[in-house]
Amino acid sequence: MDSGPVSETSHPRRLGITVPGFAGYEPLSVETVPARLAAYPEVARRLGGAPSDWSVREVGDGNLNFVYIVEGPAGSVCAKQALPYVRLVGESWPLPLDRAIYEHAALVRQAADAGPGVVPEVIRFDAGQALIVMENLAGHVILRGALIERQRHDSAAPILGRFCAETLFRSSDLALDPVTKKAEMAGFAGNHALCRISEDLIFTDPYHDHEMNPDNPALHEAIAAMRADDAWRLAIQEWKFAFMSRAEALLHGDLHSGSVMVTPPGAGERVRIIDPEFAFYGPMGFDLGAVLANLWLNAAAQPGWGAGWEDQQDWVLRQGEAFWAAFADRFRMLWQEERTGEAMVERVLGGASEAACDAFLARVQIDTLGFAGAKMARRVVGLAGVADLRTIPEPAARAGCEARALALAGRLVKGARSIATVAAATELARDALNPKDGETA
Amino acid sequence: MDSGPVSETSHPRRLGITVPGFAGYEPLSVETVPARLAAYPEVARRLGGAPSDWSVREVGDGNLNFVYIVEGPAGSVCAKQALPYVRLVGESWPLPLDRAIYEHAALVRQAADAGPGVVPEVIRFDAGQALIVMENLAGHVILRGALIERQRHDSAAPILGRFCAETLFRSSDLALDPVTKKAEMAGFAGNHALCRISEDLIFTDPYHDHEMNPDNPALHEAIAAMRADDAWRLAIQEWKFAFMSRAEALLHGDLHSGSVMVTPPGAGERVRIIDPEFAFYGPMGFDLGAVLANLWLNAAAQPGWGAGWEDQQDWVLRQGEAFWAAFADRFRMLWQEERTGEAMVERVLGGASEAACDAFLARVQIDTLGFAGAKMARRVVGLAGVADLRTIPEPAARAGCEARALALAGRLVKGARSIATVAAATELARDALNPKDGETA
Repeated sequence: MDSGPVSETSHPRRLGITVPGFAGYEPLSVETVPARLAAYPEVARRLGGAPSDWSVREVGDGNLNFVYIVEGPAGSVCAKQALPYVRLVGESWPLPLDRAIYEHAALVRQAADAGPGVVPEVIRFDAGQALIVMENLAGHVILRGALIERQRHDSAAPILGRFCAETLFRSSDLALDPVTKKAEMAGFAGNHALCRISEDLIFTDPYHDHEMNPDNPALHEAIAAMRADDAWRLAIQEWKFAFMSRAEALLHGDLHSGSVMVTPPGAGERVRIIDPEFAFYGPMGFDLGAVLANLWLNAAAQPGWGAGWEDQQDWVLRQGEAFWAAFADRFRMLWQEERTGEAMVERVLGGASEAACDAFLARVQIDTLGFAGAKMARRVVGLAGVADLRTIPEPAARAGCEARALALAGRLVKGARSIATVAAATELARDALNPKDGETA
Repeated sequence: MDSGPVSETSHPRRLGITVPGFAGYEPLSVETVPARLAAYPEVARRLGGAPSDWSVREVGDGNLNFVYIVEGPAGSVCAKQALPYVRLVGESWPLPLDRAIYEHAALVRQAADAGPGVVPEVIRFDAGQALIVMENLAGHVILRGALIERQRHDSAAPILGRFCAETLFRSSDLALDPVTKKAEMAGFAGNHALCRISEDLIFTDPYHDHEMNPDNPALHEAIAAMRADDAWRLAIQEWKFAFMSRAEALLHGDLHSGSVMVTPPGAGERVRIIDPEFAFYGPMGFDLGAVLANLWLNAAAQPGWGAGWEDQQDWVLRQGEAFWAAFADRFRMLWQEERTGEAMVERVLGGASEAACDAFLARVQIDTLGFAGAKMARRVVGLAGVADLRTIPEPAARAGCEARALALAGRLVKGARSIATVAAATELARDALNPKDGETA
């Protein structure tokens, strides 16, 4: 397809997406990693010494891929390779290798849009092997685990908010010229297999008796009530249609707390956003809602982990507000300074520019809250629940936390439009996620 | 881009879009048409006799292309060739030849989705020449001209409504599997040059002092008021963002009354929809709004043509209601019978399916009214006005009609969400488009 004259000057990192054949693809193992990486000079240099000096361990804890950490005398790298199936389920659920191409393309664009140090640096990309060799984020842990341990990373929420503002704004028609934006959207439309996972697991499977939903007897009643709720089923399908049709910006596509890495909390703490293999052009609120949903799922789980939960839950809920404030602040600044696209053009808006930004953010906020609810519900009801809830030791306490999370999800999915602010949504969450008299804490 | 296994069984007419080089492209003239068409056996057969027997006349009255009617001893054809520039403006406004590729791709899909006899039959497509040879719609005239002559084609509105329902529904995520829909959307994203014309001429240029806007002294005050209206400027840019980002369905993209051909009114009257070169994936309401806008522009012009206008205006306004009713009826039927895509799935909606259809149509109706307003305003203020208004003989009467059309446009652009039904919008139009005491009829 001739996509016309893409401006290479203004968007040097947006030069299209090429999906190779995978005829020479070979899945790596701990044993074969050194020989493969030795063939990439920039990787071998980073590791130092000889391949026989390199230690390899598999660390992937996600649902889809294998991830190897390789350490050499001079340094370390992280090698992530796509498999032709879903790791969580096995070879019975095939998944195309080309997701590595979209992940790499997203990493390159996120680095360009959000600046260095926010996503992992790519050292070498081997498209035919569906293999991305990145800097190893030594000293980092997954934010979800840190939150479960009740660590407090005060910089994660504002950095995530700024990341969302910069990647969403700068990939949209607000910033890109229309030719580039349409070509980008068309390129990422090839990532349909990963989109389909979201379409199914978030918006569809939890709402009917799907074989892959885990059985959770303590929640049978709440799930039955959800599925009997016409307004909920209608609303979730409206959110699905929005997810499938609203090509607003290049999304990370899976921005939960397992896609964020952090160093220990305190001065100089660092935050990285990883794993954008679900990237595609979708509604901005989907990424934003993912962040809020996963904070609120953690807040929901706090009562299940015993003493001290009130204080930690309050901190977690405040992170949601800080996240949205950082997003909105940065978005407003970009609106003033970088509106170089053909949407919301200054030559028409003029004095209405600020009001237009308010209106735009109000709409994005509605989407954010709706998608947050959709994402919370799927983590309680569907395949691939979150460790925040799964690790609650006492079954009755876990069920209470899950039921409260699900109730909040329903409020958000059905009523996003009637919630005035993220602060109001936070108060709603605070109220919904606290055990009431007589409930199990 | 590997777009995965597209189902050829279920969607035989959706096999991708290939844009060729145009190295051998040669613009046709009345003199060179016979030799060119003689090289296409299926065309030569249709015409009969020898090329020297064929008569050729150029009939293009659109803004972009040349169109030749060729008549031979056995039959006639219509040959439409894209030019590398905009016909209305000249070589100073280049426009890519590939628009013929998208027009052909849209014609093929519309024929598959809306059945035979609604769009012109394609006899031969020469991609490298940007040339579509179609059946000649002998005996047909352009609907806009017929409406200006106050003819009454009662079947046009219902056929247009049904056409919109079938093409919009069947190209959307409601009907197509997600892989096919995403590939289709990506393919048509290449038609960015024609999208840009709409982005500029509908949503941008009328709202600032653009050199290509025609000067219309009698309307200076009304246009100044429009451009001073913050709410209007904000709303038009929100509609523009929706136009650019909401990839709901394959649109015709330019569905005004100049893109509709009709035979003389009465028993057996026929209706064809032509010229889908602006086709791309956008919001359903854009096509629907185009139809309403052009009916309402005609209704606006009626008082300017003198006696008998009340009765004809009433008939035209009723066509808008009939159009929407036919669309909604057919859409509801398709919703029940052909919801084979992954949006609004029955296995989730179940008993909420009818309510979901109501909600979906209510949202589409809001978009329809907003885009109708956008399209009315651009025809009054911007480049490429409509003959309905331009042919009003008396300048003061014309200005009155234009000012009333513009006022209605503003109500729609700003207030689409607060209008309950298309019947209510029609009453609004009836009130807005009638000269009041003291106004020039």
